[in-house]
Amino acid sequence: ELRFDPKEHQHLRYNPLRDTWVLVSAHRMKRPWSGQVEKEEEDRVPQHDPNNPLCPGNTRANGEVNPDYNNTFVFENDFPALQPDAPDPGLNQHPLFQSKTARGVCKVMCFHPWSDVTLPLMTLPDIIKVIDKWADLMVDLGSTYPWVQIFENKGAMMGCSNPHPHCQVWASNFLPNEATLSDRCQREYLKTHGEPLLLQYAKMEAERQERVVVQNADWLAVVPYWATWPFQTLLLPRRHVQRLTNLTAQEREGLASIMKRLLTKYDNLFQISFPYSMGWHGAPTGPYLKEDQFHWQLHAHYYPPLLRSASVRKFMVGYEMLAQEQRDLTPEQAAERLRNLPEEHYKTIEM
Amino acid sequence: ELRFDPKEHQHLRYNPLRDTWVLVSAHRMKRPWSGQVEKEEEDRVPQHDPNNPLCPGNTRANGEVNPDYNNTFVFENDFPALQPDAPDPGLNQHPLFQSKTARGVCKVMCFHPWSDVTLPLMTLPDIIKVIDKWADLMVDLGSTYPWVQIFENKGAMMGCSNPHPHCQVWASNFLPNEATLSDRCQREYLKTHGEPLLLQYAKMEAERQERVVVQNADWLAVVPYWATWPFQTLLLPRRHVQRLTNLTAQEREGLASIMKRLLTKYDNLFQISFPYSMGWHGAPTGPYLKEDQFHWQLHAHYYPPLLRSASVRKFMVGYEMLAQEQRDLTPEQAAERLRNLPEEHYKTIEM
Ligand SMILES: O=P(O)(O)O[C@H]1O[C@H](CO)[C@@H](O)[C@H](O)[C@H]1O
Ligand SMILES: O=P(O)(O)O[C@H]1O[C@H](CO)[C@@H](O)[C@H](O)[C@H]1O
Repeated sequence: ELRFDPKEHQHLRYNPLRDTWVLVSAHRMKRPWSGQVEKEEEDRVPQHDPNNPLCPGNTRANGEVNPDYNNTFVFENDFPALQPDAPDPGLNQHPLFQSKTARGVCKVMCFHPWSDVTLPLMTLPDIIKVIDKWADLMVDLGSTYPWVQIFENKGAMMGCSNPHPHCQVWASNFLPNEATLSDRCQREYLKTHGEPLLLQYAKMEAERQERVVVQNADWLAVVPYWATWPFQTLLLPRRHVQRLTNLTAQEREGLASIMKRLLTKYDNLFQISFPYSMGWHGAPTGPYLKEDQFHWQLHAHYYPPLLRSASVRKFMVGYEMLAQEQRDLTPEQAAERLRNLPEEHYKTIEM
Repeated sequence: ELRFDPKEHQHLRYNPLRDTWVLVSAHRMKRPWSGQVEKEEEDRVPQHDPNNPLCPGNTRANGEVNPDYNNTFVFENDFPALQPDAPDPGLNQHPLFQSKTARGVCKVMCFHPWSDVTLPLMTLPDIIKVIDKWADLMVDLGSTYPWVQIFENKGAMMGCSNPHPHCQVWASNFLPNEATLSDRCQREYLKTHGEPLLLQYAKMEAERQERVVVQNADWLAVVPYWATWPFQTLLLPRRHVQRLTNLTAQEREGLASIMKRLLTKYDNLFQISFPYSMGWHGAPTGPYLKEDQFHWQLHAHYYPPLLRSASVRKFMVGYEMLAQEQRDLTPEQAAERLRNLPEEHYKTIEM
């Protein structure tokens, strides 16, 4: 029988954080593409747009005027999916028609006063201000809410409706599906193997190196063994850190630096402002602050959709929605491509 | 306290087929949209394109010539994600680096010789031929493979790379994630409640009517109580039917008719050839043919991405990928809109 070669032979890989499998069919990269071609993102975003509700000094939908902010700026989402005061749907429900109260808050956080920058183009001190503000929001909202989801949708391809650099923070009175799943997987792993899942994983990836994209004294960014999106990465601290709020000043500096390096490589891959959705997962908060959460390890997921070029993306559609996620190159191939890219941003080289 | 109104107040709904929750925030439909606008699909697909590898008489990538087919036509995918002969990655794996063999076949099935038709524009006898061929493929591939996934990606927005009306059939030596999950949920429901989940659900929806889109003697199409995509539907037989292969001739006729009616309403909603991914789920096959699968009920899922118009879709991105799926109108509102649409296709009216 033929010797197994992951680059040539399709196989399944296990995602221990979600208890699911991904189908890896590396040879699919060879197929021709005559499907949808994405519009190149507009590169001519002005530094200040008087009509953009996210810019300093402008008026938002609700009539409020933004301050003349210098670094980050946080405000309540004007069209929130979660509000603090929704009434309860009540009890006595049939098992097939179950509903529950959803309460929470949705905030928007601008990273910088200028619309024409993105994280990899910002200075390290300015990225550290973003990280500090993330931690502040985790403290504030996490004091009562069990889950505070920090996430960034970057690029029109990822449903982002405003080019100004920003992320969102949605806090809820419930643990969302992905949080519940990740909590269960990490809890069971600790119970069975005696060590937090992602702490052990980071150590092993640091030894093996083949999936590492960038690393420094405190952090590691890898294309995880179970990546589903073509150039998906997982950003991990080396120390056991349960929440963003527990990062030391040095770890925040290291995080700013590794984010800048990772996102610069992303932009350099197809010489475009790389679209993605990213977000932080850490131990739950609110009532969980008093419980043991030793199984948790803080981490960020980056889910970028592009596959072959700035205009050809991976579609997670039919088979992926109805059966199982499938990828067209191995995580090791993706990591190698990212690792070999320069760490200077193509835009700063051009200038 | 305020009285709960699902159209006004955000809440969570339980999906008993996936054991997850969806966040319903109906008031979000009011927010302005200045994000990505989808290209209108090209309407000028020629009936026969000499360069399209799916048309009758044309030569495909591997040099094979398509027959001059009159209704359906099935061939092996020239760039398959699954092949019958992949070698085994082997044993002795670390729990964080687990892989498994994936074997299978990928087929493509053309619905019709013409590139300029879609299912709702086809005649009932021609749609019945599609259903019969689906059942034939389930018999053939299901004789050995445990899971045979029939799915259709329709429209460039859903990653479809060829405008010719077709679907795909991927058979695998493993139960994919979604199959495993649905199997577990249906099995547990039967155990706890004494009746197959979807059989009971169809009865209750038929009584309540508020989420029914179209119905006939043997079938029901509803926007499920737990729908995540804006106009998602679930197509269910009224009788307990475990697999496509068990449908009677009358049920196949009824299925052709309800599919035509449902898909016509979809196209009429935004007067566009409505994009979606759809697929069939039924009891597993191969070795499972010999086991009791009473908990299973055959059904089709339709996942269409459009939200507000032919050019504004719902993005399942940041919060949805990292925390929980979220929808912007209630399933009841979606069902009502679809139900009130005419059953004559806008294209045949125009003609
Ligand atoms: O097989 P196709 O049509 O080339 O490809 C399409 O469907 C596949 C199965 O859902 C996906 O994996 C691809 O991302 C999508 O573009
Ligand atoms: O809140 P935004 O940026 O208007 O909207 C975007 O992110 C949300 C959270 O992931 C999604 O629900 C929307 O579909 C997406 O367009």
